[in-house]
Amino acid sequence: MFDTEANKNTVFAKFEKLSERVDKLRAAGRTPFGMRFDEMLSQTRARVGNAEILLAGTNNYLGLTYDADVMEAAKQAIDTHGTATTGSRLANGTYSLHLDLETDLKEYFGAASAMVCTTGYQANLAALSTLAGRGDHLLIDADSHACIYDACRLSDAETIRFRHNSPEDLNKRLSRLPAEGARLVVIEGLYSMLGDVAPVAEFVEVAHSNGAMIFVDEAHSIGCYGENGRGVSQAQGVLDKVDFISGTFSKSFASIGGFCVSRHEALELIRLVSRPYLFTASGSPANMAAARASLKVIASDTTLRKQLWDRVHQLYSGLTDAGFTISSPPGPIMAISRPDEHVAVAEWNQLMDQGVYVNLAVPPATPQAKSLLRLSVSAAHTEADIDQLIAAFRGLAKGD
Amino acid sequence: MFDTEANKNTVFAKFEKLSERVDKLRAAGRTPFGMRFDEMLSQTRARVGNAEILLAGTNNYLGLTYDADVMEAAKQAIDTHGTATTGSRLANGTYSLHLDLETDLKEYFGAASAMVCTTGYQANLAALSTLAGRGDHLLIDADSHACIYDACRLSDAETIRFRHNSPEDLNKRLSRLPAEGARLVVIEGLYSMLGDVAPVAEFVEVAHSNGAMIFVDEAHSIGCYGENGRGVSQAQGVLDKVDFISGTFSKSFASIGGFCVSRHEALELIRLVSRPYLFTASGSPANMAAARASLKVIASDTTLRKQLWDRVHQLYSGLTDAGFTISSPPGPIMAISRPDEHVAVAEWNQLMDQGVYVNLAVPPATPQAKSLLRLSVSAAHTEADIDQLIAAFRGLAKGD
Repeated sequence: MFDTEANKNTVFAKFEKLSERVDKLRAAGRTPFGMRFDEMLSQTRARVGNAEILLAGTNNYLGLTYDADVMEAAKQAIDTHGTATTGSRLANGTYSLHLDLETDLKEYFGAASAMVCTTGYQANLAALSTLAGRGDHLLIDADSHACIYDACRLSDAETIRFRHNSPEDLNKRLSRLPAEGARLVVIEGLYSMLGDVAPVAEFVEVAHSNGAMIFVDEAHSIGCYGENGRGVSQAQGVLDKVDFISGTFSKSFASIGGFCVSRHEALELIRLVSRPYLFTASGSPANMAAARASLKVIASDTTLRKQLWDRVHQLYSGLTDAGFTISSPPGPIMAISRPDEHVAVAEWNQLMDQGVYVNLAVPPATPQAKSLLRLSVSAAHTEADIDQLIAAFRGLAKGD
Repeated sequence: MFDTEANKNTVFAKFEKLSERVDKLRAAGRTPFGMRFDEMLSQTRARVGNAEILLAGTNNYLGLTYDADVMEAAKQAIDTHGTATTGSRLANGTYSLHLDLETDLKEYFGAASAMVCTTGYQANLAALSTLAGRGDHLLIDADSHACIYDACRLSDAETIRFRHNSPEDLNKRLSRLPAEGARLVVIEGLYSMLGDVAPVAEFVEVAHSNGAMIFVDEAHSIGCYGENGRGVSQAQGVLDKVDFISGTFSKSFASIGGFCVSRHEALELIRLVSRPYLFTASGSPANMAAARASLKVIASDTTLRKQLWDRVHQLYSGLTDAGFTISSPPGPIMAISRPDEHVAVAEWNQLMDQGVYVNLAVPPATPQAKSLLRLSVSAAHTEADIDQLIAAFRGLAKGD
């Protein structure tokens, strides 16, 4: 209930409509944006109130959050290095852990430089806002993640959006640019909402033939795509041509943090001037150690990736057979578009009643103002888990 | 060595001068911005190469990074909740841990609402960029931390800087504003570079009498100032009048993360629209648990605070007696202004030779383009540690 009188002329006045929308959502059942997991039971199960819920809306693609080696590495790091660094990477916040992780990332990607940041959000802010400066052009995919848009706002460069996943449109826009200033093209390997993959190889070709460098955010794809899990760039055979790859530790890496690697050594220089890298404390020892242990698994364990894709195909077939249209070809992220927010919220509640959690995604967080039920698959899902998911969705179809 | 030809017309071209500056710094001895702690030995000691170094340039004010309860809480959280949430607070990233921490913060500050973010940097971005919107005015202290400036860039509000620590100048600027739009005044309790304290009580008076709300960043002061460690606002008796308090878990809280609390319940609403809160994975279980355990100590343990202030006074007297001028009255942050960057770098290297690490702070990270040696005191410092620090600085004075 919004107090219009009390909030008049204050910073809160602008939230009155939002408050009414929240009241409406609440009236529909659970608050989908106030989800609380009371107890985690495993990578794929949580207790919510008295119910045990199957989780199909995390980004825990390889299920490493409960991996014995990853947990042990995090706990050992606390014993050895303490619970935090309490300082910026540029001051007292660079431990051997941070540098070893950067070395591992360089080796994994065959890169000349690697910079680890405290969150994935800040990694994109740190790299993009600093690399692209006054007089430069940032060309970003229209469906870019919020942190790429925020990075553009922090940068002094001019931002130009091109049509989602359209190298043709990028080519047109690049060809119209003045000769002055540097050009940086930004795409994602796998888009987090609709689960669609970018034509990275074509984008690389278009960028380079127009004198631009290319930056690929592989936050959701690392661990899932490519022979060694190095993402969509690897899967499309252009890993060595991409100028910058960014990623996050909060998905397959089972931690918190992010990074940018580059085949150009000069990326190292931005450490000294990148505000979102400098003006924040460095990642905690536990998080750095967890990311490092996960990277080892991601790079070497092909079984987990195979498990993940087996479950992906099982879920994709099952949902398609049940009459649902999945937004993209099979992949770890599957989105089902609903007619409107009202239907999506009602169905989300029905799924919860059946013990299944998926993500509810509504405007403005979605492309084309869609209302989505978003599922994500984990290597930790069993065949039986996927069957349970499909059955829950069949229940929805019947209820329609 | 910068490759001018190879970097021509690329995003790196702009970093040529920076590269030359780095080469120069390196030639002066160690790279002060490439400090690596090879092994942490305690809150106040690290191994760097073969040398054991006394740390007097962390933000570990209460020394809780090695507190047994804090470490144990972090490790237990890994066992119980796994190494990460892999999701946004709005989706699958809210565990009981996050909400319990918010409840504890509300109770501690006597606040109506509390919002926990993944880093302190993002907490200020999340709160300020969302609270102040189009048509509003953000009035910020000229010496504000980089993340407050970055928050202003992300906000659609108009930003106005007022003279550092000057309620008079703020008053003048507020009185000139049009009546339309909300007004939000932003200050810090304790400034991180020069260690000076804001006249918070006067600022509260000026803000409120001009129809503005006031936001106080107490990142460096929580744990150190006020009877229960609640910061400078508490120390000056105006905690209940401040509209918003933000803070970080990466200093006294011995963790990573940040928060905003408010006496206004409506702060809750911004969870649904604040991009730096939404579009990032939530804090890892270990970090949330460490912050919670630290808060317990901060709120209840007055001995640590007393120890901290005893060491502060000891160091202040010692450095003053040795002929150094400290930038501010005694406090956990002490800065000594040097004539130029060259002298500051040389002295920083001499201190390292004597086994003492302090922060080197040079433009553009410093107010008034100063070159500073910045010290910070920890409750974990012993009397002997402080004596060692003073002796090292006396060595500098002699060398002058």
